[in-house]
Amino acid sequence: MDSIKKLAELFGKFPGIGKRTAGRFVYYLINQPKENIDGLIAALQELKNAVKLCEFCFNPFENNGPLCGICQSPARSKNILCIVEKESDLLSIENTKKYTGLYFILGGTLTLRKSDGSHLRIEALKNRVKGGSFTEIIVALNPTPEGKSTSVLVERALKEGLGARVQGLGFKITHLAQGLPVGGELEYADEETLESAFEGRK
Amino acid sequence: MDSIKKLAELFGKFPGIGKRTAGRFVYYLINQPKENIDGLIAALQELKNAVKLCEFCFNPFENNGPLCGICQSPARSKNILCIVEKESDLLSIENTKKYTGLYFILGGTLTLRKSDGSHLRIEALKNRVKGGSFTEIIVALNPTPEGKSTSVLVERALKEGLGARVQGLGFKITHLAQGLPVGGELEYADEETLESAFEGRK
Amino acid sequence: MDSIKKLAELFGKFPGIGKRTAGRFVYYLINQPKENIDGLIAALQELKNAVKLCEFCFNPFENNGPLCGICQSPARSKNILCIVEKESDLLSIENTKKYTGLYFILGGTLTLRKSDGSHLRIEALKNRVKGGSFTEIIVALNPTPEGKSTSVLVERALKEGLGARVQGLGFKITHLAQGLPVGGELEYADEETLESAFEGRK
Amino acid sequence: MDSIKKLAELFGKFPGIGKRTAGRFVYYLINQPKENIDGLIAALQELKNAVKLCEFCFNPFENNGPLCGICQSPARSKNILCIVEKESDLLSIENTKKYTGLYFILGGTLTLRKSDGSHLRIEALKNRVKGGSFTEIIVALNPTPEGKSTSVLVERALKEGLGARVQGLGFKITHLAQGLPVGGELEYADEETLESAFEGRK
Repeated sequence: MDSIKKLAELFGKFPGIGKRTAGRFVYYLINQPKENIDGLIAALQELKNAVKLCEFCFNPFENNGPLCGICQSPARSKNILCIVEKESDLLSIENTKKYTGLYFILGGTLTLRKSDGSHLRIEALKNRVKGGSFTEIIVALNPTPEGKSTSVLVERALKEGLGARVQGLGFKITHLAQGLPVGGELEYADEETLESAFEGRK
Repeated sequence: MDSIKKLAELFGKFPGIGKRTAGRFVYYLINQPKENIDGLIAALQELKNAVKLCEFCFNPFENNGPLCGICQSPARSKNILCIVEKESDLLSIENTKKYTGLYFILGGTLTLRKSDGSHLRIEALKNRVKGGSFTEIIVALNPTPEGKSTSVLVERALKEGLGARVQGLGFKITHLAQGLPVGGELEYADEETLESAFEGRK
Repeated sequence: MDSIKKLAELFGKFPGIGKRTAGRFVYYLINQPKENIDGLIAALQELKNAVKLCEFCFNPFENNGPLCGICQSPARSKNILCIVEKESDLLSIENTKKYTGLYFILGGTLTLRKSDGSHLRIEALKNRVKGGSFTEIIVALNPTPEGKSTSVLVERALKEGLGARVQGLGFKITHLAQGLPVGGELEYADEETLESAFEGRK
Repeated sequence: MDSIKKLAELFGKFPGIGKRTAGRFVYYLINQPKENIDGLIAALQELKNAVKLCEFCFNPFENNGPLCGICQSPARSKNILCIVEKESDLLSIENTKKYTGLYFILGGTLTLRKSDGSHLRIEALKNRVKGGSFTEIIVALNPTPEGKSTSVLVERALKEGLGARVQGLGFKITHLAQGLPVGGELEYADEETLESAFEGRK
């Protein structure tokens, strides 16, 4: 296979990228000066060599040491843990600048084709919780069908593994509020969202 | 003006209907049997003659008496009032089958062009609240810019007019929960929604 | 059934109007002054009484006499006939101000559920063509699957019924050009469109 | 800057890729086995080393010699030239399997910010045409505002530089047909498209 097709095939595996867009990427690169392709190669090399996953939360980072900037920071509360599906969710939450605890990146959700959870970091999560002193664990997964069934799995894992502490020593498990999003309208909200918005009123 | 254009013009004033769709409505009617046009005329006549607005909540209805089915019903709590923008919002909430109090249809929102609120039923609302015995008033307007500025107006009206009772005799004013809608994703949520989802976690 | 539901049901049969929009129409009318409902009723009455279909082309109109303004006009060529699916297609073509012949409104297309063409004005079309002196007949149906299969039916009807004249006395049957629409892009054009654009280049 | 940000920045320059998608690409790569990143790097290296632009038409290719497969092929007519904006347009036309002449990739269009055409291969185009023996030159640019103004520029360049031959020795300049695309509808076609469809009927 020639390198145009080969590269288009690799780009075609990028998330959300179809055959046509992948081809456009290749043509874009072909029309760049060769230095730019070298620059891209160098950035990929560095990504491969320098980036590691944080030993606590699995967030990718480049500092020295085993822990990412968030996990290392003395400013972050060690008593609260926020479980997210993926890196970009962590970033979205950081952007609000309102959360000051730690994270744990689960690495995905249950799906129809991966429904047993063996691809998720459930065991690592249990270890983090056993070894920590959390008073609250936020299960911040998407309120999608996949996110919701994963939430059930995560909670069960937390409770089964740590049942005594959940009840006895006590951390509480919380979930993000469901409701109307900013800019949403009652008329177009589905029933479950509207119910949540009513139940959670204050 | 001929009747085709005249009717297209009237349909063109219907909410969300442009010139092209209005024309399509007219052609649709022209191609119907004449009985169907008679049926439409009869339904409009009956709407005009039979439908009144509820004297309490402004919900359109056809029963005898001055009050709509909801306001008449002994099953509905008289201690809680839900303020909505329009009829369809009332219907959306009724469809959830979770709310058992009364309503008040405000009749619109503040907009850029109607920013003083004189087109809204603010005075009628004050009268309802003065004359009632509510322990909770839910301001269930859309979390849109228009809905939010209208909420501010409504609350101020309630408090100014009824200040003593708000604090003294005490009804509380509540709002629908903001948060992630069912099926929403953290990654695509705007910051304010995500903040609300975090703050309202439970 | 009460008149709110009744009217919503009738509006729900309008082309492209779902249950929710139909309900919005009813609430819109309820909130109008009663004179406006009277105005709508009057316009419907007039439509019913004054509008007829042109005896030649089936275009709805309000003049005296049996023929619409286009068919009556001495400025329109009587030698060219443009067959369209529906009234709004006639209007779209008139808006270009480039066509000066006559029309014939077929009254629909073949569909999966109405695949025999008995709902179309095929016989009337044959009569028009037999009785006329056309040198060109434009089959101006949409290049959609429905429009294309209807074109085949129309052409067959013209040729079978009038075969001698098609070849002998000679009118030609033409079709609208297929090609890239204004603002279209080669990259996103389907293959058949692109082929047509190539074949029809000039 | 760390390599995560650096790489996201480079991906963010890819056509049609925003900040968020660029970040998603980086996270996708971080979660791949290191071999996959090596594979991507190798493909980029090979693209850089092996791919050249055809000396005649500027189509990227990997064969030996100065000319791409199309320009080398004895099966392709040397008398007809199709001028396209970019590589993907060439591919779209090849996919129809109906065009058997040569191509010339112009390298872009006029835009608001690049309105003089100095970024386009106008001079090279003149040279190709002077040195060739074309009987037809197809200006196959998009019927968008940018494509149309570029068509004017291209034609003027062809005529000014080669005026004698255009008239005297004679090649003709053609354009793709404008008309209704497959699946299009008269009712939604803009006026110019509908006019073209009428004028080009056959």
